[in-house]
Amino acid sequence: MQCTQTSPVVITTGEPAGIGPELVLMLAAQGALPAGTIAIGDPQMLRQRAAALALVVDIIETAPGQSLPERPASTLPVWPVALSEPVIPGVLNTANSRYVLETLALAVDACLAGQAAAMVTAPLHKGVIIDAGVTGFTGHTEWLRDACGVDEVVMMLATDNALHAQAPGWQGSGDLRVALATTHLPLREVAEAITYERVMRISRLLDADLRQQFGLTSPRIAVCGLNPHAGEDGHLGREELDIIIPALDALRQEGLAMSGPFPADTLFTPRHLADVDAVLAMYHDQGLAVLKYAGFGQAANITLGLPLVRTSVDHGTALTLAGKGVADPRSLQVALSLARRLAEQRASSLH
Amino acid sequence: MQCTQTSPVVITTGEPAGIGPELVLMLAAQGALPAGTIAIGDPQMLRQRAAALALVVDIIETAPGQSLPERPASTLPVWPVALSEPVIPGVLNTANSRYVLETLALAVDACLAGQAAAMVTAPLHKGVIIDAGVTGFTGHTEWLRDACGVDEVVMMLATDNALHAQAPGWQGSGDLRVALATTHLPLREVAEAITYERVMRISRLLDADLRQQFGLTSPRIAVCGLNPHAGEDGHLGREELDIIIPALDALRQEGLAMSGPFPADTLFTPRHLADVDAVLAMYHDQGLAVLKYAGFGQAANITLGLPLVRTSVDHGTALTLAGKGVADPRSLQVALSLARRLAEQRASSLH
Repeated sequence: MQCTQTSPVVITTGEPAGIGPELVLMLAAQGALPAGTIAIGDPQMLRQRAAALALVVDIIETAPGQSLPERPASTLPVWPVALSEPVIPGVLNTANSRYVLETLALAVDACLAGQAAAMVTAPLHKGVIIDAGVTGFTGHTEWLRDACGVDEVVMMLATDNALHAQAPGWQGSGDLRVALATTHLPLREVAEAITYERVMRISRLLDADLRQQFGLTSPRIAVCGLNPHAGEDGHLGREELDIIIPALDALRQEGLAMSGPFPADTLFTPRHLADVDAVLAMYHDQGLAVLKYAGFGQAANITLGLPLVRTSVDHGTALTLAGKGVADPRSLQVALSLARRLAEQRASSLH
Repeated sequence: MQCTQTSPVVITTGEPAGIGPELVLMLAAQGALPAGTIAIGDPQMLRQRAAALALVVDIIETAPGQSLPERPASTLPVWPVALSEPVIPGVLNTANSRYVLETLALAVDACLAGQAAAMVTAPLHKGVIIDAGVTGFTGHTEWLRDACGVDEVVMMLATDNALHAQAPGWQGSGDLRVALATTHLPLREVAEAITYERVMRISRLLDADLRQQFGLTSPRIAVCGLNPHAGEDGHLGREELDIIIPALDALRQEGLAMSGPFPADTLFTPRHLADVDAVLAMYHDQGLAVLKYAGFGQAANITLGLPLVRTSVDHGTALTLAGKGVADPRSLQVALSLARRLAEQRASSLH
């Protein structure tokens, strides 16, 4: 069975003590879950959370490959995965860590089998998964990389102009997309990690998925320098001269529309962004501070380089907010909207 | 003679082959130079540039301490400093490098003598000054530090809400101010430069000048972590635990309203910024990319810790644009507006 446009988008509801389950329930109760969305999680836990928050949601159990019933708004179809122990919102429990990984495994299997068009992940909690004995666990992105058997993935954050165009103060003329050459490294390790080979690999992955998932025929990628002022001709660091510029030259030879390296504080202005499809930042805070500012906290995370479409919220489990119904579901909404768009684009480019 | 509110704000016109002179002339021709603004530079060069760009500006020579004549709009009073050689826009000439430094010295002397309320600097070109034999020259900020005989200064960029409130798409509820714990360092040297002592010194300078120049009685300063996710409890770097958190604790003991360290990508969202007067970023691109994005390229640079008020444009000499009349004077306008506000606040807090 192949991915089709009518395959569902599945949401892994994430750490059960965090805000993930209630974000999905809030969208369902508002009738804001797009048709063809399925949650993965423990149905009993979801029903309890909905009741505790007085959210009127009809949770119906279904399974991969089953056709979705005609669904009134506020019905939430769920692929069930059973928790080991009952959940207290805000309280982590290592006994339920395997459950979180099982929801991910089910989503990956369904995407690879063509039973799901894309997967959207609600936040998990790294610490409790490590504490449960899953040594070396560093997060969704790396787990998915290994589960899909690929060597490298690229983390990209994007705003969704389709959702933002109506927002007050929105200044964008299009989606803003920022990919990262390095992700969760201590700052002191970043410079050493920026190698010619890494810039080549990440740029190629980014270019390929902007074509395949975003439907761009020749994606224009603007690259940040590593150093302030992009090194100012070597006065403020040599990585631009020694690594980044030679890599971009080689990539252009391969036909990629790379430009830069640009000073990060000049590149992120509307005038420059108007001419680029994605920015490649060299490290986490160089790219994500401005992306999240621009996206009003409503950006989504996209993992490029996987044999499936995966988007994610851009926030954490927010344990202190869990069970209170006050968390903001807009990033999940952006992640869902993007997942559907990317899945449709990917399906059309593969057929 | 003391600084008074009627002292002029002086603009050093900067590298004569760059866009500095014409930015001043453009504002003068538009009648957009506030009353009490004086340029420092070569009057002949300014007249030639105005003529070449068909800018109708009446350049009148005056001198420090002379009272300003009643000035029709489009008159530009100038404190003359003579160039060594004629200028070709866009073409650097080491013979004129000393001239640039002489304009700065004149401005500093006038500010310290109370003959000017503040100084605003148009861009200079580091390279040509170094090439002219001024070894160790690293820029305006450090030159001013040494000229004023202080040990340390703080670089801060700010948007000017007074100017921006009318701009389409402006989303700020107030000025956004970002100060830097380190400035023009190669990224690989940043982590080593973040010491307990530096965080203490920079924070105290920032707090003091937010009180004195911005009139804030208890400035709320939010501090970025050095590492992504502010180190995530030591998983992504230990500088937060070992350096930044102890420094902030000590600063709070001194009565400073410090908060953080926060992940930079979470802090720079309108919701969090609403409660802070300034952000202290640990390094250049962490703070300035978002500041310049937020300021629509119309931010100004302010040097804190000097015994005078100094603001600056946030851009360079733009040699390729020089002599064409196409450069954007809005950052100079922000710098001028801020200089006047800061000078008035400083005068009132010193009296």
